[in-house]
Amino acid sequence: MAEQGSVRRTKYQRIATELRDAIQAGEYAPGDRLPGENELMAAYNVARMTARQALGVLQNEGITEARKGAGVFVRSFRPLRRHGIQRLSGGNWGSGQSIWSADLGERALVVDRVEVTERTAPEHVATALGLSPTATVCVRSRRFVLDGKPVQTAVSYLPSELVAGSAVTHEDTGPGGTYARLAELGCKPVRFREELRSRMPSTEEATELGLSSGTPVIQICRTAFAEGGRAVEFSELTLDSASYVLEYEFDA
Amino acid sequence: MAEQGSVRRTKYQRIATELRDAIQAGEYAPGDRLPGENELMAAYNVARMTARQALGVLQNEGITEARKGAGVFVRSFRPLRRHGIQRLSGGNWGSGQSIWSADLGERALVVDRVEVTERTAPEHVATALGLSPTATVCVRSRRFVLDGKPVQTAVSYLPSELVAGSAVTHEDTGPGGTYARLAELGCKPVRFREELRSRMPSTEEATELGLSSGTPVIQICRTAFAEGGRAVEFSELTLDSASYVLEYEFDA
Repeated sequence: MAEQGSVRRTKYQRIATELRDAIQAGEYAPGDRLPGENELMAAYNVARMTARQALGVLQNEGITEARKGAGVFVRSFRPLRRHGIQRLSGGNWGSGQSIWSADLGERALVVDRVEVTERTAPEHVATALGLSPTATVCVRSRRFVLDGKPVQTAVSYLPSELVAGSAVTHEDTGPGGTYARLAELGCKPVRFREELRSRMPSTEEATELGLSSGTPVIQICRTAFAEGGRAVEFSELTLDSASYVLEYEFDA
Repeated sequence: MAEQGSVRRTKYQRIATELRDAIQAGEYAPGDRLPGENELMAAYNVARMTARQALGVLQNEGITEARKGAGVFVRSFRPLRRHGIQRLSGGNWGSGQSIWSADLGERALVVDRVEVTERTAPEHVATALGLSPTATVCVRSRRFVLDGKPVQTAVSYLPSELVAGSAVTHEDTGPGGTYARLAELGCKPVRFREELRSRMPSTEEATELGLSSGTPVIQICRTAFAEGGRAVEFSELTLDSASYVLEYEFDA
């Protein structure tokens, strides 16, 4: 079937295929600059539009990214590994570590923006947390930066009736973070549900995460449950898909 | 900050914003046709290029999709719910059910293509399965269709030394599928690792899954381990992101 598909190709597809093969063969390494329109026009004896279309194919596939004024580069995928399950295991945050430290090795994930507010729960949040429609929630919005690049935004909602007056409502929640504070309040998270989808970002999200075109986001809705099944936190995470591999390990 | 962003916008962004707001307010429901270029030109008194750019913004955000010759429609997101953990639980396939049936309710996921071959393990597969570089594997390639639309391709690799001569090498693996056969061979999967990422599809993947532009794929690499930690299957799944929500539930 792969053979059949390669028989009749338009010129720009053929150029795109050659460039893709060269990238996969390692002739262009991640971070390398690809030939530009002028170079492709000369090398393949094609019109500018053809060269542009060829480069467009690779960019739409997310194999390359354009940097303004500098050219087109092979995208490097050197992702953060997010361990969905180990990461949230009690042993980790129970001993006063950030839930993020499991992911990182020597690379430092930094919160470069925190905003904590209180508001009436949005409808879907009230539903997720089992709150009345007029209930208020503590809203913690953060942006995470890795190696100087924004990689994730996170908005967490916690019932005000539960966390009002605690360090959860402070920018710095203290050692062990929000989950350690919830444990002190008698609402230690013991179970998590994560729902994931992937989609293209809105213009605002692309700006917030500094995404080049052809970069989807992964959206995770996470609910934390305390003993007895009470939902104590609902979070909406938006991840730069070029920065993350998500890992889940579990028994049959 | 949302306020600030809306002060200065170009014409096409303003039109895109109005259309997006109308979609979010439910004035256009999923599956509805949006006004086309001609209608936008008349309604907003703008040039064709401006109307086209406005529609392009929504399409790049994955909110709408173009159908050839028919116009631009609000994307409907009526996803399959894929339960990463319950789905693979022993109780399910142990009793002779397909691992997929947990996902579906009344909607029927159908395999419309199966191909089973034997070949030398690709390097990354040999690594994942802990095989020698010259080992052969049974390769099971399938495509899954829901409501007439392809939603997933799956390529599974199993060590030939383990499955040669068993029904795993047949197109129809029999009741309970591959995992039930592995159990009969004394290699019942007891633990799974799933690694997920999201990216734009290649041209071939977009064709194979019938993806409209602005639709990323979710790629899952899944390894199944038998008692003692032996890797018995490695699978590469490619999911239409517009068709899936992935769910993982787990204890802290």
